[in-house]
Amino acid sequence: MSSPKVGIIMGSNSDLPTMQAAADILKQFGIPFEIDIVSAHRTPEKMFDYAKKAHTRGLQVIIAGAGGAAHLPGMVASLTPLPVIGVPVKSSNSIDGWDSLLSIVQMPNGVPVATVAVNAAQNAGILAAQIIASSDKTLLKKMIKFKDTLKEKVIKGSREVRKVK
Amino acid sequence: MSSPKVGIIMGSNSDLPTMQAAADILKQFGIPFEIDIVSAHRTPEKMFDYAKKAHTRGLQVIIAGAGGAAHLPGMVASLTPLPVIGVPVKSSNSIDGWDSLLSIVQMPNGVPVATVAVNAAQNAGILAAQIIASSDKTLLKKMIKFKDTLKEKVIKGSREVRKVK
Amino acid sequence: MSSPKVGIIMGSNSDLPTMQAAADILKQFGIPFEIDIVSAHRTPEKMFDYAKKAHTRGLQVIIAGAGGAAHLPGMVASLTPLPVIGVPVKSSNSIDGWDSLLSIVQMPNGVPVATVAVNAAQNAGILAAQIIASSDKTLLKKMIKFKDTLKEKVIKGSREVRKVK
Amino acid sequence: MSSPKVGIIMGSNSDLPTMQAAADILKQFGIPFEIDIVSAHRTPEKMFDYAKKAHTRGLQVIIAGAGGAAHLPGMVASLTPLPVIGVPVKSSNSIDGWDSLLSIVQMPNGVPVATVAVNAAQNAGILAAQIIASSDKTLLKKMIKFKDTLKEKVIKGSREVRKVK
Amino acid sequence: MSSPKVGIIMGSNSDLPTMQAAADILKQFGIPFEIDIVSAHRTPEKMFDYAKKAHTRGLQVIIAGAGGAAHLPGMVASLTPLPVIGVPVKSSNSIDGWDSLLSIVQMPNGVPVATVAVNAAQNAGILAAQIIASSDKTLLKKMIKFKDTLKEKVIKGSREVRKVK
Amino acid sequence: MSSPKVGIIMGSNSDLPTMQAAADILKQFGIPFEIDIVSAHRTPEKMFDYAKKAHTRGLQVIIAGAGGAAHLPGMVASLTPLPVIGVPVKSSNSIDGWDSLLSIVQMPNGVPVATVAVNAAQNAGILAAQIIASSDKTLLKKMIKFKDTLKEKVIKGSREVRKVK
Amino acid sequence: MSSPKVGIIMGSNSDLPTMQAAADILKQFGIPFEIDIVSAHRTPEKMFDYAKKAHTRGLQVIIAGAGGAAHLPGMVASLTPLPVIGVPVKSSNSIDGWDSLLSIVQMPNGVPVATVAVNAAQNAGILAAQIIASSDKTLLKKMIKFKDTLKEKVIKGSREVRKVK
Amino acid sequence: MSSPKVGIIMGSNSDLPTMQAAADILKQFGIPFEIDIVSAHRTPEKMFDYAKKAHTRGLQVIIAGAGGAAHLPGMVASLTPLPVIGVPVKSSNSIDGWDSLLSIVQMPNGVPVATVAVNAAQNAGILAAQIIASSDKTLLKKMIKFKDTLKEKVIKGSREVRKVK
Repeated sequence: MSSPKVGIIMGSNSDLPTMQAAADILKQFGIPFEIDIVSAHRTPEKMFDYAKKAHTRGLQVIIAGAGGAAHLPGMVASLTPLPVIGVPVKSSNSIDGWDSLLSIVQMPNGVPVATVAVNAAQNAGILAAQIIASSDKTLLKKMIKFKDTLKEKVIKGSREVRKVK
Repeated sequence: MSSPKVGIIMGSNSDLPTMQAAADILKQFGIPFEIDIVSAHRTPEKMFDYAKKAHTRGLQVIIAGAGGAAHLPGMVASLTPLPVIGVPVKSSNSIDGWDSLLSIVQMPNGVPVATVAVNAAQNAGILAAQIIASSDKTLLKKMIKFKDTLKEKVIKGSREVRKVK
Repeated sequence: MSSPKVGIIMGSNSDLPTMQAAADILKQFGIPFEIDIVSAHRTPEKMFDYAKKAHTRGLQVIIAGAGGAAHLPGMVASLTPLPVIGVPVKSSNSIDGWDSLLSIVQMPNGVPVATVAVNAAQNAGILAAQIIASSDKTLLKKMIKFKDTLKEKVIKGSREVRKVK
Repeated sequence: MSSPKVGIIMGSNSDLPTMQAAADILKQFGIPFEIDIVSAHRTPEKMFDYAKKAHTRGLQVIIAGAGGAAHLPGMVASLTPLPVIGVPVKSSNSIDGWDSLLSIVQMPNGVPVATVAVNAAQNAGILAAQIIASSDKTLLKKMIKFKDTLKEKVIKGSREVRKVK
Repeated sequence: MSSPKVGIIMGSNSDLPTMQAAADILKQFGIPFEIDIVSAHRTPEKMFDYAKKAHTRGLQVIIAGAGGAAHLPGMVASLTPLPVIGVPVKSSNSIDGWDSLLSIVQMPNGVPVATVAVNAAQNAGILAAQIIASSDKTLLKKMIKFKDTLKEKVIKGSREVRKVK
Repeated sequence: MSSPKVGIIMGSNSDLPTMQAAADILKQFGIPFEIDIVSAHRTPEKMFDYAKKAHTRGLQVIIAGAGGAAHLPGMVASLTPLPVIGVPVKSSNSIDGWDSLLSIVQMPNGVPVATVAVNAAQNAGILAAQIIASSDKTLLKKMIKFKDTLKEKVIKGSREVRKVK
Repeated sequence: MSSPKVGIIMGSNSDLPTMQAAADILKQFGIPFEIDIVSAHRTPEKMFDYAKKAHTRGLQVIIAGAGGAAHLPGMVASLTPLPVIGVPVKSSNSIDGWDSLLSIVQMPNGVPVATVAVNAAQNAGILAAQIIASSDKTLLKKMIKFKDTLKEKVIKGSREVRKVK
Repeated sequence: MSSPKVGIIMGSNSDLPTMQAAADILKQFGIPFEIDIVSAHRTPEKMFDYAKKAHTRGLQVIIAGAGGAAHLPGMVASLTPLPVIGVPVKSSNSIDGWDSLLSIVQMPNGVPVATVAVNAAQNAGILAAQIIASSDKTLLKKMIKFKDTLKEKVIKGSREVRKVK
């Protein structure tokens, strides 16, 4: 695989089952990525280093998932000029996802995090692809096709439902 | 000004005082943009048209702000391959911003909206700049400088506070 | 069955187990209906078409169910002059139903959605019947009878409970 | 004015400034209505009487507004075969409108209330008009026109905003 | 059993497993009670009749349990001069109990409901006993003893826990 | 005034403007009461003493108001056999009243607090009167009359509103 | 074991499975502790006695866990000059932990409780160790080492995750 | 003033009016402190440096206040072995303080933050004093006296209130 364009990081191994969906969708779009555990609270130096160097290594987007008082996406965003996508994870450490969501989305002026829905790692992957596609015509066409496949699934489902009486 | 790269839209004129901050920051970064009222609920055809053609007109990112049951960012995201940034506006029509925030961030699989904090139009502008900068080295350098100015303001503020006893 | 008077639509096949109750109650009242999958986010063109033509095809009421950032009821309401009933679905994509409820009920001035309780598809069906009955004396009598059967069930239950000591 | 088709009721005089908007929009559509104070908690017998007789007096829809533990819309709905529209009022007696909203929308199976947004009395009036229009072609045309005027206002607002730079 | 002093009512048979605890504690205190299903929404006339006559039949307190948009306790309180204790039931029809709690506790001026915790039917029974005991010295002594038994259980539990190392 | 039957206590002087309404309504019913500041957190010994002796001094009901993490009503309830009415006060120390409400109503098994709405001191007074009236025929008649005056106010308000067109 | 420096108390035996983690971590740091059941609501006198004497017995920190309307941590804090750490327990008696959290953290001026996350008894133990370590160089070194082991676990986890493709 | 034992830091100058109360109470206890602006998001390097060196400079406790997605207290806690007290600030950047509270209190296992109430900087100062007093007999006596002055204020207030009739 060529040099990664997207870095997927998460606060703990227990986030992997949720975050895997981001990796899957990037593979589907053929976008090279890397994946790692980087904990804001338990490995702050590693996080610092990761975030500071990300753009120098050719990464274009960072996807960060975390649960509870989720500081990883916001801290990484404070240390990199790259766009950071935050995935609030509804872990056992979380009050129904409210804490993760608010800890990620309510960032102060100057340091945005592009927040997606609770547990929505697939959408984080799609958003990363859209960001890269915004300056890559070939990928943009793939994105348009992807949206068409969403339609086809619904239309197929529709056929079955219309038989319901 | 050259052809706009960012489209800033909002559901109603009353959102303009909030959304103006997105325009201001884009001007500061020298990124050409356009600004318009596009209501999902009152001008659905215009919204359709706007979203469908955005990428063909050279736009790379769309910023959409709306309050209450805020459908504009999500509907635009369903109609364009471009990344869409959503700004939950805490209008008089809103339950303390909770409705706007949840209506924008909790998008289903396949159709992400990059959500920022309630009323955080400035951050929406910065995120748009980061997205364009992710494939534009000159802009990326500007972004790194911008982050340094954030630091300087804090350090200046720090000097005053340290005198407090 | 004669031409449908009520259109039941939902954002995804996974909403069918919930939305089926709306169909069941309409059958009970002898009101012809149709049922389909129409996704605001994945098939926006179909939604547009469905909503724009609904009143020309003889539909009198539309029932729309959706979960998470539920835009289907509100978008359909923006495109049709007919009354639209919204059912917030507590799907796996939802924060305990709060997002679905607020995304449906908090519509802006000019575009109401008649919102029922979370997962209350049966009540959506009853409300549709009441709307049609408001100008149909025969159906109104059926509705009065229906309310009497609600009473009878409670009275029967009461008999058993009163033996509790 | 001819015999009223819509009954607008509210729990207390202090709800009138909010509920007035329902009356205003019905006047605009030329739909005859009546307006009264009917308190579920302070005049339960009057409420009983009002709800029981509403359909015999020619009313087709009831709009009920109330704040706090708002029982008026649901209790009226339990006593009439007519569709009942509930307006959650954010009174001084309310926790930010959450109590009014949940007390009105979360009705049990068998007894729906068509709930609109917090304080959205104008939308309650429009919904009442849509319900009557669903079996009245002339009124349906007025409703289609009304939606067009919504568009025009947005388009006018759009012209001003587009000058913003 | 002598004439009942406490009336336990609930909106539906499905509330019985929760509400049984109120009956159990009254039996323990030797206070005669009656138990019945009275639905505000499905048997409004029965509710009216029950509430209006309660004090004439010798009842001193009414305990009312209900879920979702729980109107039973408040409506009964509006129709009787007796103290009414409300039990918010976390039924399947409820958003985690928030709707039941707010619909019961947030009553307007003039019509209080003595609200206990979500599902706390046992506490409703104890509160009913305290109300009767407030003018009954013998029962007051029983209540003081009851509180002592609460202590004893904790002290017994304490002995086991202190061995933990 | 004869020996007090109701004790009104509150956590701080700043609660007095809210709690005054409880005193006013008791005066209206001619029920003797006393009023005092008793802070669970700042005067725990006084609270202990007050609660332990209340029933020996002839008090029949205690009304306790507090804001924020409101422990006064629950702690007093743990120390007295009398019924305790809790008033959640929305002080500046409170998150919109949510903390006060939950701290008072969510009591564990064995120790109920009869909770009224946020800031509803008047209703606390009425509930205290209802508790005493439950074994006092003369007071019960006054309570029935009081409810009639509520009706009259509404009916008077109704006359004005019905003129609205 | 030498004289205890930390007292771990909880409102009920059912809190022990959660609170055990506080004991485990103190053992790991070699800090002597005691553990007991002390209920604010069912054994108020014991609580009073425990809190009043704690500092005279050589305790330096108290950890108190409780669920629902959790008054134990705050009441103990009002009676001792020692720092009190509160653990909100998400018991069956709780609304998703919101009531426990707010009842513990929202203390009035003058009486702080050092609140940790819902169910976070392990963190309560670590915080107690940090408090003692703040004036104990040897323990402070252990704390620094402890933080290093947190890092090592993450780094080990990281190795596995990086293989994911 | 001798070498500071408590470090008070905050994310922005706008937090100073709130955080000043922590400084005031430490002065009252005669505990030397320092005060500074340290932003997790805008000066991450300064925050790193501050937190890493705090214990080497003789600090025993750190008080950190922040609003919105408040990461400062948690990030500092991840970098120091000292106890960290977090103050959720209800800034204009916050959803009624919910985001600040949850971002600070819901920390993962291994990294506690001792959280106080929203805006409760005074309590943060008292907690810091209690932590230092836990191993300092003289300060512990001052703390006991401080609690007595709380009592005196309440007793004084009580005298005035008891005159209310």
